[in-house]
Order: sequence, then structure tokens, then C-alpha cells
Amino acid sequence: MARRSQITAPGGSVAAHVIERCLALARHTETEGTITRTFLSEPMRRVHADVEAWMTAAGMRTSIDAAGNIRGVYAAATAQAPRLFIGSHLDTVPDAGAFDGILGVVLAIALVDSLGGRRLPFAIEVIGFSEEEGVRFGVPFIGSRALAGTVDEDLLGRVDADGHSVADAIRHFGLDPSAIGDARYAAPALGYLEFHIEQGPVLDHLGLSLGIVHAIAGQTRADVTFTGSPGHAGTTPMAARADALAAAAEWVLQVEGEATATPGLVATVGRLHAMPGATNVIAGQCVTTLDIRHTDETALAEAVGRLQNSVYQMATRRGVEVTWHTRLGQPPVQMTASLVDTLTQAVRRCGAPMLQMSSGAGHDAMVMAPHMPTAMLFLRSPGGISHHPDEAVREEDVAAALSAGRHFLDVLTEDPHAR
Amino acid sequence: MARRSQITAPGGSVAAHVIERCLALARHTETEGTITRTFLSEPMRRVHADVEAWMTAAGMRTSIDAAGNIRGVYAAATAQAPRLFIGSHLDTVPDAGAFDGILGVVLAIALVDSLGGRRLPFAIEVIGFSEEEGVRFGVPFIGSRALAGTVDEDLLGRVDADGHSVADAIRHFGLDPSAIGDARYAAPALGYLEFHIEQGPVLDHLGLSLGIVHAIAGQTRADVTFTGSPGHAGTTPMAARADALAAAAEWVLQVEGEATATPGLVATVGRLHAMPGATNVIAGQCVTTLDIRHTDETALAEAVGRLQNSVYQMATRRGVEVTWHTRLGQPPVQMTASLVDTLTQAVRRCGAPMLQMSSGAGHDAMVMAPHMPTAMLFLRSPGGISHHPDEAVREEDVAAALSAGRHFLDVLTEDPHAR
Repeated sequence: MARRSQITAPGGSVAAHVIERCLALARHTETEGTITRTFLSEPMRRVHADVEAWMTAAGMRTSIDAAGNIRGVYAAATAQAPRLFIGSHLDTVPDAGAFDGILGVVLAIALVDSLGGRRLPFAIEVIGFSEEEGVRFGVPFIGSRALAGTVDEDLLGRVDADGHSVADAIRHFGLDPSAIGDARYAAPALGYLEFHIEQGPVLDHLGLSLGIVHAIAGQTRADVTFTGSPGHAGTTPMAARADALAAAAEWVLQVEGEATATPGLVATVGRLHAMPGATNVIAGQCVTTLDIRHTDETALAEAVGRLQNSVYQMATRRGVEVTWHTRLGQPPVQMTASLVDTLTQAVRRCGAPMLQMSSGAGHDAMVMAPHMPTAMLFLRSPGGISHHPDEAVREEDVAAALSAGRHFLDVLTEDPHAR
Repeated sequence: MARRSQITAPGGSVAAHVIERCLALARHTETEGTITRTFLSEPMRRVHADVEAWMTAAGMRTSIDAAGNIRGVYAAATAQAPRLFIGSHLDTVPDAGAFDGILGVVLAIALVDSLGGRRLPFAIEVIGFSEEEGVRFGVPFIGSRALAGTVDEDLLGRVDADGHSVADAIRHFGLDPSAIGDARYAAPALGYLEFHIEQGPVLDHLGLSLGIVHAIAGQTRADVTFTGSPGHAGTTPMAARADALAAAAEWVLQVEGEATATPGLVATVGRLHAMPGATNVIAGQCVTTLDIRHTDETALAEAVGRLQNSVYQMATRRGVEVTWHTRLGQPPVQMTASLVDTLTQAVRRCGAPMLQMSSGAGHDAMVMAPHMPTAMLFLRSPGGISHHPDEAVREEDVAAALSAGRHFLDVLTEDPHAR
């Protein structure tokens, strides 16, 4: 006998309940008055308790792996069936919103719950990753790396601000870091699907609920430092200056110009520190950062190359020294065409307008894509707001995502080629 | 009988002794290992002791006025003769060099000493001002304002970081603030002459020892703040941004462009603070400062007006809000043509190449100019370095300044019209 859905309560939509559950999890925080939950911090225990109860109620068998991921398996119609993973993360940045990551986990549970006990020709494993934001240890994706089987000694040995390692944190949470290998997914894997808020304004500007992610942008980060000559702002003629801040300003506009002229490129100088930083002193040194992203590796590399050329030429013209220190070079990751097609069919079936888009932010899907077919569905972020208490999601968009998710399961069920 | 010069010692030039005396005064500091001496701090007592001894040895009658200025009067040939003031300041910025201000006082004493007791048709009063840099109370020129007679209750009531007022500081030094009116110069005043290092690179670039100052630039200072929208550097398309740092960068180049295109104008953005200041976040707000100077009041006002126009236009185009808060509007001060001519004749007589120039920095001469004929002579700053321990002066330039000073006294002596 099919169970009755646990989520659909009288007088409320499933989507509204999904949002309520996200807000309920938001109360489990390290810092009262904010939403702050880093890797295996104490409030994560209470999140696990809630999620475990919801998973169990939706007919899943739950466990917590050695990376602190909470996992719920919804059995297939047959024992040897392949498995579809649907996941996102349960950690947050400091002073976060309630939906980044969390929505993807809660929505996946609601999706399984909506099956009402009906068995599919594949199992579904919903996974709530313990860590994606990279806050506590300065490296992201601890949860999905455990699922992918790529956690190494280097990662386990990384320490937080208090000198505790990842392995220490796992032990402190009551888990066994030596068992981390067991967290790896077992074949055959049908694929990995992730629901996530867009964290940007594109869907909101277009008035769309959903976006199908075809690629996650690669990114290069660099520190670009200009060294000129400090001097008295009143007594140094313009022609005698080597103003590090003026050089940095020209660089900021070079970055902006390059990104504006190159389709699909975003590039940002977000930090600029001028020294000595006094009203009446010409800056002698200026430290800036570059964050530049594109979904095409060649386009990204060429843009970085053009910026390096132009900044050196400009600095030479100004008599200012420039140093370029690349801190991160992360290649783009393409979602898997076959699973993106399946997701596209699903969105088409539920009648939603179709947008394929790239993700400028990193996601767990990036970690999973080299290991199994991977697809990702974005939900509109009202106002493009993310990593902020004002982060929100619309009930209608959650409903659209749930509908797309159900059609996705249908397509996979109907079409063995899609599996 | 003419006294023998106290300064010319066997084996050393007068100029070398002037430099030695400056270095000796540099040892009287608030912070060991640096040269730091603010208004009426304890080390100023030891400076007064040294200066008083040197003044006395040069034939001057000394006193300390209620503003803490040390004053030495070298009597004229006749009792009712007018008085020439020669001065500069004895305070310093934190971690200063040894010559800014101090050199002008020590050089003036050496000049009087070089008269060897010979009487002139005018008295000379050498004055070492207690305060010019504005460090302790945030307002400059306490010493020269006392000589000019413009110290008011507002100034006496200003408090330092410890809550002590200017009046408190005067009392603590053993002086009587109620007597500050007595510090005002007594007519007839022949004029005010100040020797000072340039604090800029112009003379050094031209290979000149001396520069005759014809005007001190007026300056406007403003805080210019840009408010856009913070956003995710990866997920916000370029067209959807209102990047406060990019707007501020364009502003920095507008300021530089305006100054480069306008003869005699210097303009500087020395401070720029981008918030939140993270690599992967588009800046939502950016605070900058403007420091803009010109010796012509109309030219300065017009340049400020053009910059206000262009920054508002640019911000509107970018969808960024801009606020402009003027913090200082100080008009230019012209040196007195008659005394500048006398100084020009003197420099010509000593065979030095002639350069008339403006001062981009403020000086006590600025305070004195409305009250009596005022002139100012710059000495080359090697490397243009000022307000820094590496600040220096060349012996040959001190010798040239002493020679110009002696010719200046000669011209005044010979030509009653010059007096």
C-alpha cells in the first residue's frame, strides 16, 4: 500500500513545507541571531536529527558516513538496480541565508516523499553533504569529495583556526576518519542531480523559475600588486609621480573592460588596499585581487593572458612595478550531456520555460561530474541575493523544481537509455 | 668689538654645523629610535634649552611666549627700528626627519650669528614655533597663529587624544594661556622670512639648491563615497553589476586626468577603501579621499567643479550613488611681491640659479602673509623625501641658503625702499 506523503499537510503546498523545513534547519546555528554552521560544528547534530527523521518518514534507510554526510537510501524495485544520487550541502557560510545548499537536500527528501512508497527501477540516495563552503578549513567540498572517494591525507590533515585538523573534527563528532574510504559511492551509479539556488540575478532578471546548468565556470584567482613611489600629495608634480593607486585603478578598469568585451566572462577586482592610505600621501603600494571566471577553459586562459599583457604594459608606461601571483587555477567543469538532456526533457514536460545557463559559483556537482553523469537545476534567487540573511526562494519556484524533479524521475523510469 | 661667530668651528663649514645642530635637536624625541615631537611635549623643553643657548651665543635676547614659541631678538642699531621676523617650526610629525621646520630655525640663528654682532637698521627676531604640523590637536599652526594674534578660544579649547586641551598643554608646560595675546608681534614689522626644505622633488629634479616661493597652494579635501550593489563575483553578469570599486577606479583616473590636463594643479586619491573587500564579492561601497591643490583660487574651484560634474555623470551612467563631503577648503596664499623681490635680488646676488615656485604644502608663512610682508625660501629635498627618517638636506644647499640670507639682509640694509 502506498504511504501517504508526509509533507503535504492540509492547507499547505509541498513547496511551502520545503521552505518551512529550510527555515527550521536555519535555527541550528553556531551564533545565535545568525545562520552559521561550519563543518561538523555542534548544531550539525541537530540538523542530522531533523533530516534523519524526515528521510525515515519518506521511506529511506539513513546513515551518517565518516565525512559526516547524512545519507538516505530509498530502495529500488529490484536489488541490483543502479542508484541515482540527489544531494547538496548542509553547511553554511557565516551569517548565511537559509537556502544555499540546504534547499537542495530538503527538496530531494520531498521528491522521494512524493513517490509515496512507489518503487522505481533505480534506487535513490539523498545525501546531505557536511561541507561545501570551505569556511572552517579554507578548502571546500569535504562532503562531496568523500562521496567521490577523493579525500586524501592532505585534506584530513588540514587545520582550522584553532589548530584542529579535519580528522580531529571528524573524531570529535564521534566518527572515524579511517573509515572515510567507505563513504565512496558504490557502482553502478546512475548519476548525480543537484538542486541549488542560483546565487545570482540571471533567472530573476529574466523572470524564470528554473535554469538548467550546462557547465560550472572555471576560475583563476590572483593577487596583483603595484609598487610605485609614495610622495607628498601637495609637493609632487603629476609628471614626477609613480602612483600605485592610479595604476591599480587603471587595472580595475582593464579587468572590467576585458570582461565586458568577452562573452561569458565575468571578472572582478573585489579587494584593493592602498598603502600608506593617507589623504595627503600618494600611494606607494597597492594590493588588488583578481577573480575571473568562464565556462570555457581556452577562453578563460586567453582572457587571463590578455590581462597580464595589458597590466604589464600599463605598469611599464607608469613607471610602476607589478607582480602577479596566481593563487587558484580551477578549470571549468561541464555537466554530463546525457543527464542534462534528461533534465531538459523533464523541465520541458512540466511546461516551464527553458533556460540553459552556466554556474559562476562552484558546487558539489563539480566534484561529482568526473565520477558519474551529473546534472544540476538552479532555482531563481530573488534579487540575486546569496550568502546573506536576505537570501530567499519563492514557493512557486520550489513547486516548479519539485515538478521538474518528478518528471526527471519519470523520464529515467520510462527510458532505459536515459539511465 | 665684533664677536667671533659661534658656529664656524675650525675644520667645518657653517652649513655643516647647521646640519649638525639639526641632528642634535633630533635626539630630543618622544619615542626613542624615531624623531617625534608634538606640541609642548617634554622633549620640547630640551630643544628650547639648546636653541636658547645658541640664540644667546649669537647675541640674541631670548624668551618663550605663551604659545611655547621660543623667540630670540637681535637688537637693531637704533631703538625704534622695525623688526624682521625669521622663523619656522620645532615640532615634527611622528617618525619624522631631522630638517622639516627645524632647519629654518637653526639656519636663522646661524644667519644672525654670522653678523658677528654687527648692528643693522632693523632688529631681527628669530622664532622657533612650537607647533605647525597639526599632529596633537588635529589643527596646525598653533605657533604662528600666536605670533599673528589669531589664537582664539576655539583653538585653546581643542582637545588631544587624551582629552587635554591646548590650554591644558600650555599650562602643563609651565606657561599661561591667558597671556597668549602678548605673543602677537608688535609693529612695526618689516616682514617674515622662512627657510624650509621643499618637501618635494622639483628642485632635486632640476638640480637646483634654492627655490623662491611665490605662493602657497590652496587645497580642497573631500571624502567621495560610491555606493553600488554588492554581489557574487561568479554569478553576477557584468551588465547586471553596480560595482562601487569600478566606479571608484574610474574616479581615481578622472582625478589624475584633471590634474595632468590643468597646469599647476596636483590632485590625489590617496585612500581607497572597498567594502566588503573580499576576492569573490563585488564591492558594494567604496570610500575615497580627494586632495587637490592649486595656487590660483579660481583654477582650483573650477577644477573641483569639473571633477564634481564628471564624477556625478560617471556614477549615474554606472547606476552607482556618489556622495561628496568637502572636509577642507583652504584658499591659496600669495607671498608678498615686495619681499619676494628682495629675496629674488638676494638669490641673484649670490649667483645661484633662480627658480620661482609654488609650495604645495602648507607653511607658517601662510599664516603670517595676511599680517606682514612675507617671503619663503625653499632648500632642495634630496629625492623629494619628507616626513620620513630619510629626509635630508645637502651641505651645499644650506651654504647657498645662508649666502642668500646674508644678501637678503644686505639688500634690506642698503635699500630703505625694500624695508
